[in-house]
Amino acid sequence: MSIRRIEQMLNQFNKIGYTENGMNRLAYTENEHKAKELFREMCEKEHLTVRMDYAGNMIARREGINSTLPPVSAGSHLDTVINGGEYDGTVGVVAAIELICRLNEQQIQTSHPIEIICFAAEESSRFGIATMGSKMMAGKLDQNKVKNLKDKNNVSLEDAFSQVGLKVSQVDGAFRESKDIKAFFELHIEQGPVLELEQLNIGVVTGIAAPTRLKITIKGKASHSGTTPMDLRKDAFLGASEIGLAVEKAALAEAKKGTVATVGDCAVTPGAMNVVPEKAEMIIDIRSVDMNSKKKVMEHVKETMKYVERKRGLWIHFELLTNDEPVLLEQHVISSILQTCEQSGISYREMTSGAGHDAMNMAGLCSTGLIFIPCRDGLSHHKDEFASLEAIKIGCDVLEKEVLKWAIPAKGKEIPK
Amino acid sequence: MSIRRIEQMLNQFNKIGYTENGMNRLAYTENEHKAKELFREMCEKEHLTVRMDYAGNMIARREGINSTLPPVSAGSHLDTVINGGEYDGTVGVVAAIELICRLNEQQIQTSHPIEIICFAAEESSRFGIATMGSKMMAGKLDQNKVKNLKDKNNVSLEDAFSQVGLKVSQVDGAFRESKDIKAFFELHIEQGPVLELEQLNIGVVTGIAAPTRLKITIKGKASHSGTTPMDLRKDAFLGASEIGLAVEKAALAEAKKGTVATVGDCAVTPGAMNVVPEKAEMIIDIRSVDMNSKKKVMEHVKETMKYVERKRGLWIHFELLTNDEPVLLEQHVISSILQTCEQSGISYREMTSGAGHDAMNMAGLCSTGLIFIPCRDGLSHHKDEFASLEAIKIGCDVLEKEVLKWAIPAKGKEIPK
Repeated sequence: MSIRRIEQMLNQFNKIGYTENGMNRLAYTENEHKAKELFREMCEKEHLTVRMDYAGNMIARREGINSTLPPVSAGSHLDTVINGGEYDGTVGVVAAIELICRLNEQQIQTSHPIEIICFAAEESSRFGIATMGSKMMAGKLDQNKVKNLKDKNNVSLEDAFSQVGLKVSQVDGAFRESKDIKAFFELHIEQGPVLELEQLNIGVVTGIAAPTRLKITIKGKASHSGTTPMDLRKDAFLGASEIGLAVEKAALAEAKKGTVATVGDCAVTPGAMNVVPEKAEMIIDIRSVDMNSKKKVMEHVKETMKYVERKRGLWIHFELLTNDEPVLLEQHVISSILQTCEQSGISYREMTSGAGHDAMNMAGLCSTGLIFIPCRDGLSHHKDEFASLEAIKIGCDVLEKEVLKWAIPAKGKEIPK
Repeated sequence: MSIRRIEQMLNQFNKIGYTENGMNRLAYTENEHKAKELFREMCEKEHLTVRMDYAGNMIARREGINSTLPPVSAGSHLDTVINGGEYDGTVGVVAAIELICRLNEQQIQTSHPIEIICFAAEESSRFGIATMGSKMMAGKLDQNKVKNLKDKNNVSLEDAFSQVGLKVSQVDGAFRESKDIKAFFELHIEQGPVLELEQLNIGVVTGIAAPTRLKITIKGKASHSGTTPMDLRKDAFLGASEIGLAVEKAALAEAKKGTVATVGDCAVTPGAMNVVPEKAEMIIDIRSVDMNSKKKVMEHVKETMKYVERKRGLWIHFELLTNDEPVLLEQHVISSILQTCEQSGISYREMTSGAGHDAMNMAGLCSTGLIFIPCRDGLSHHKDEFASLEAIKIGCDVLEKEVLKWAIPAKGKEIPK
């Protein structure tokens, strides 16, 4: 029954924005809005009170025995990247609705109210900022930081907002305070290969890696590929190649700490068969839950940049796009989830999250847990992204048990804040 | 007087297609056509008979004392790349007209007729094939090979031809035979840095390097940049980086033979900050006048491809786009030009041409000489391309002396064919 319901909900959401190339429910588009309206409909069917806040987050509330207590929350997001998958975010929203369905079926009343949050704009694909909805809720993003945003089609956030009945000038009204929420739990696919490889059901996240992102511009000299002797060249692409391999080497040296680093793009100008490359622009993403480890990778990349600049007579400049602090989740929340898994006989491991999630912003507001389930081949942000219904069901079970621990605290065993 | 005339002619041609970003007289466009019509006008003013052949080449003839003798020819092209320079090609056409002006001024009659050829479509920028006009004249490109060509805007060669009064079905009418031309000389800017660096006036070209061109496709696996451990990645860009550096290493090992190799572009897919690159497509240009030297570079690149494929778990495929034979110019023509420089007290060196020229096709038809003058900073195919009027004037002097040697052979000293 539970599995079939989960399947049906997933199917209903994934009819919205479906294309042969993957799911398309970009932030603040009609498709995301439709998905959120479907969320509203599903929640109202389960007798929840649903509202949309000033950031476009949908908040559905199931009253508790004591409606003055702060709610225990669960949720995730329904927006996708361009040509994304059917599980990233959606699984967490479905799991939260499933939790409500189960409580209603069993007529369980909780002391604390329960809230399901469907965050707006978790993916950065449209406006370049990730987890916009939860950042706004946590007070990490105010109207001044977003009022001039534009997407690739030059549509302003202002215009996108007005299409779905929002106003940028009211964004700050989405801020919530610590006392307003007891705890937040998010179920999410791992988006990596570890749980599947190790054949484990649950990943209990201890920390969320934060990206340090660079843009490196390398300028050499355009010259004729046939007439410029090898020793008189200033080839920007070859400089980029050396830096790219150095990025990998530096990350491998820090692999024990779970640090990773990636050259995501290298755009070569002019990019012609008969011209020695004049310019190369690289984007680099370094992630770790250990700030010091990221710093070590950065140092190595900077040294290589200097060396390559000198050796090849290039001009190399880097711009630090972001240098975020990792988020470590509270130990007592981690321990509680680990215990839930242990007691349920569900296999698990502690792990870090290399990807950002709404949970990392909520952690600034309240006790927060992030629970991973395996996905096939570690694949995500892709039409072939897949998590089995069985895996999702296990995730739902853990989420339910954990939320109930917080929403119906055993007398004298109130989990300390 | 001569310098001012050269300057005026260059200015007149470079009014056509001038933009702030460089010259734009793409092959078989209105601008190239206008430039050729100006060529016609200038030549007719000097009493030459001008015709356009079936490939769009303009041929201007000055009668000789014996009009049954095959003409001695000189020329180059007036088309440019997109945002090209004012000297590449144009200098050779202007020098040939200047030659006629000087003969007319001095009322010199030559035994052989003299022809000035302004070749059509020397640059590959529009239809992807370089030196189209001279290839058609030399019988190296027939209508079957060109009838389906389209430019980037999807304009067919057929349509482009009809705009300038040509028909693709008549292209083969441009073929000429060896007996029809005594010799051909082309003056051209070096498009490389060697003459300027060595402060020499003239480069006497001994051979024209031919390109071997590859397209390498590297397929890895797209995965999340934050959640994929370093040792589980299949990063196509890192594979491309290793191959790029191997291309350079292999060419450096063959540098003594003047061999060069270039990765002109490396397109990364999907090219996003948070995705490990799935695909990289590189284009590689290897040039030498020594076929064996090119082969050695190819072997090293192929070995590296295999090694990288195995090491990184990638799929690497290469496509050989062209593998042209270099053209070696006739020794007696080279010697003759060297002697002309020597006797005129003009500094010179022998050199190879890394770029293709109309002369390489004409070499299949008749005795052919290619004469380089220095250009600033080796820069070409760029708005800042520059050759001084003094350098051009010296080139004109050598061209004039050399052409006259062939057009008025000293009795008993006919240069052997």
